[in-house]
Amino acid sequence: MTIRTPQQHARLSADLLEELRGSAPLVHAITNTVVTNVTANVLLAIGASPAMVDIPAEAGPFARVASGLLINLGTPHAEQREAMIEAVDAANDAGTPWVLDPVAIGSLPVRTELAQRLATKRPTIVRGNASEIIALAGLGSGGRGVDSTDDADGASLAAELIADRHGSVVAVSGAVDLVTDGTTTVRVAGGHHWLTAMTGGGCALGAVIAAFASLSDDRLATTVAASAVYAVAAERAAAVSRGPGGFAVAFLDELSLVSADDVVGAAAIS
Amino acid sequence: MTIRTPQQHARLSADLLEELRGSAPLVHAITNTVVTNVTANVLLAIGASPAMVDIPAEAGPFARVASGLLINLGTPHAEQREAMIEAVDAANDAGTPWVLDPVAIGSLPVRTELAQRLATKRPTIVRGNASEIIALAGLGSGGRGVDSTDDADGASLAAELIADRHGSVVAVSGAVDLVTDGTTTVRVAGGHHWLTAMTGGGCALGAVIAAFASLSDDRLATTVAASAVYAVAAERAAAVSRGPGGFAVAFLDELSLVSADDVVGAAAIS
Amino acid sequence: MTIRTPQQHARLSADLLEELRGSAPLVHAITNTVVTNVTANVLLAIGASPAMVDIPAEAGPFARVASGLLINLGTPHAEQREAMIEAVDAANDAGTPWVLDPVAIGSLPVRTELAQRLATKRPTIVRGNASEIIALAGLGSGGRGVDSTDDADGASLAAELIADRHGSVVAVSGAVDLVTDGTTTVRVAGGHHWLTAMTGGGCALGAVIAAFASLSDDRLATTVAASAVYAVAAERAAAVSRGPGGFAVAFLDELSLVSADDVVGAAAIS
Repeated sequence: MTIRTPQQHARLSADLLEELRGSAPLVHAITNTVVTNVTANVLLAIGASPAMVDIPAEAGPFARVASGLLINLGTPHAEQREAMIEAVDAANDAGTPWVLDPVAIGSLPVRTELAQRLATKRPTIVRGNASEIIALAGLGSGGRGVDSTDDADGASLAAELIADRHGSVVAVSGAVDLVTDGTTTVRVAGGHHWLTAMTGGGCALGAVIAAFASLSDDRLATTVAASAVYAVAAERAAAVSRGPGGFAVAFLDELSLVSADDVVGAAAIS
Repeated sequence: MTIRTPQQHARLSADLLEELRGSAPLVHAITNTVVTNVTANVLLAIGASPAMVDIPAEAGPFARVASGLLINLGTPHAEQREAMIEAVDAANDAGTPWVLDPVAIGSLPVRTELAQRLATKRPTIVRGNASEIIALAGLGSGGRGVDSTDDADGASLAAELIADRHGSVVAVSGAVDLVTDGTTTVRVAGGHHWLTAMTGGGCALGAVIAAFASLSDDRLATTVAASAVYAVAAERAAAVSRGPGGFAVAFLDELSLVSADDVVGAAAIS
Repeated sequence: MTIRTPQQHARLSADLLEELRGSAPLVHAITNTVVTNVTANVLLAIGASPAMVDIPAEAGPFARVASGLLINLGTPHAEQREAMIEAVDAANDAGTPWVLDPVAIGSLPVRTELAQRLATKRPTIVRGNASEIIALAGLGSGGRGVDSTDDADGASLAAELIADRHGSVVAVSGAVDLVTDGTTTVRVAGGHHWLTAMTGGGCALGAVIAAFASLSDDRLATTVAASAVYAVAAERAAAVSRGPGGFAVAFLDELSLVSADDVVGAAAIS
């Protein structure tokens, strides 16, 4: 495990962004009905190629050829649950990196049981807000609906526990994002609170993490890169917006316009 | 039942908006696949917290803890229909106010039968366009697809009939919205025709009505408030837009920016 | 079959646009969860009336009364697959024109089999990118996810084959769109690459083609018109945008604002 300085992480994040735009990774997203559209648009804006293949008999074969896979539990209909299991098994078999986003788990029984089952399949990366990460670790009962009631740092113990137990990199979203592999923990500041006023702001980050994960086996570095690029684009978008509607539009623009130099200059990694 | 002047309604609407922003009610929306995203964004913009929990075994428990519930019949898949019944029964048991939006009922058999069944469960509020309200009352066969072929005032008898029969407040959307509890009828003008050129313009209002309904037992007043705030934000958005695309973006901005004073100054209630 | 000059096609496209706005055709869209919202907004912006009726027992009756029908295979859940067959059979029986969009067929088994089955039901129009058209014709195994790996012209043989076999007009989307009835082939240039960076850019065109198809039995002409108006609106939107987010918003504005004269002046038909 290479320990990097914040400056090295920022430089690497910028390099990975350029590599992503050059390779246009194919991201297989099985995600909820609320955010499919914005997730696909975010992936396209950053330079990835999205595909939402979420039915049994198709999800498995597709996960084999995809560059990365996102499993988001936001609206886990029966057909999708079956497709998720199939996709994850195929991804593990084929070596496709995959991201688990355990949306709103805790007290909701179907998704909580599914998340626990998927976690044992050793996700490459787990992304959630603090309440979700605490619930997945078995240390609490989850938040209030889909919104977190805790700071990211309040979930650092839970994140390390999941990292140790399942061999995953864990990303906790908050005002300051926290990324850990159980040994090394990196914090990414920046972003903007309008990301939480835009449906899918968190969910689409999971898809971006899956895109970056296809670029290197160093998933701590690729997850930090995804968070850093996302945060820099959000800051730039907020600077030209007057409300959450305009922000969501400008955010897509900035994801496509932000340069490697912008990332090096603005990434707030510690 | 308190009879209020238009000025009193406008002042109360403004107060309720401030209260909503302070309490961030958790709105449980079981809605159609076309509008989930915009519905969530509208709720976030106005200051509520949306959650789309629409599968059996989760919808019931969640409706118990939610501040308000929306049941929208736009794309009533089998799993969602089961979740709707479960959610409504739990909401009634727990005292969670709920809104029924009988989208496009009339000639389409599955949703029409479901709407009639749900209506007997005594929705706190029913919201629809004139054709839908007339069809729910059994006075006509519905409109042309999802768009109404009647003025709101043409459905005033049907609205009163539903209010009497099921104990609901009924909101009929149109160029001028009509809100009635069967005894008192209030009209809210304003808004903009671009709301009908933005998918989910009507459906998201149902969710906003559910958010306001959590604030007070006077559901005539809270429904008028939802309609009035919505109309004022739409007018302000239209003033800075050149087409329906920009309007949808500006509408989210205005829902988050509109102040209590703006509402008092611009609400067109009679 | 009338052979038209490019100028005649442009003039006819402009006339059909005006006719569409006057008649507001009811477009029945059974489409994927990623693009339902943008598809409905595109239809509203151009002046059509969208309705997404995608469950069994409702899809058939609705296809009978709709002006046009779109069948898009992007996320073909079991319930939707059943509704598609029902809708197509009803459309054929009632004479409702229908468009088949075989999204991402080729290696994905469920949708590929479904597309082949639907193709034998003689779609009025087939729309896809080059990889999808080649796969539907049985001449190749499809592209990479939902994005095409071929130019439209590379699929001209496949398009003619489908046209001959199923009696369909075939539209192949690309930098230059190709429209053929098997005998006459028309090319529509223009548009903008941001259409491919906006989720649903291609899928929504299928819905617009269904809207235009309701206006005349000359489906070569109505499909050219849909492509030409779409391309002109996209060019105009790109001219006022700085990225894909703003483009998607401006595109809706331009679809509603573009005039018949704009179409005559800017359509690039050959």
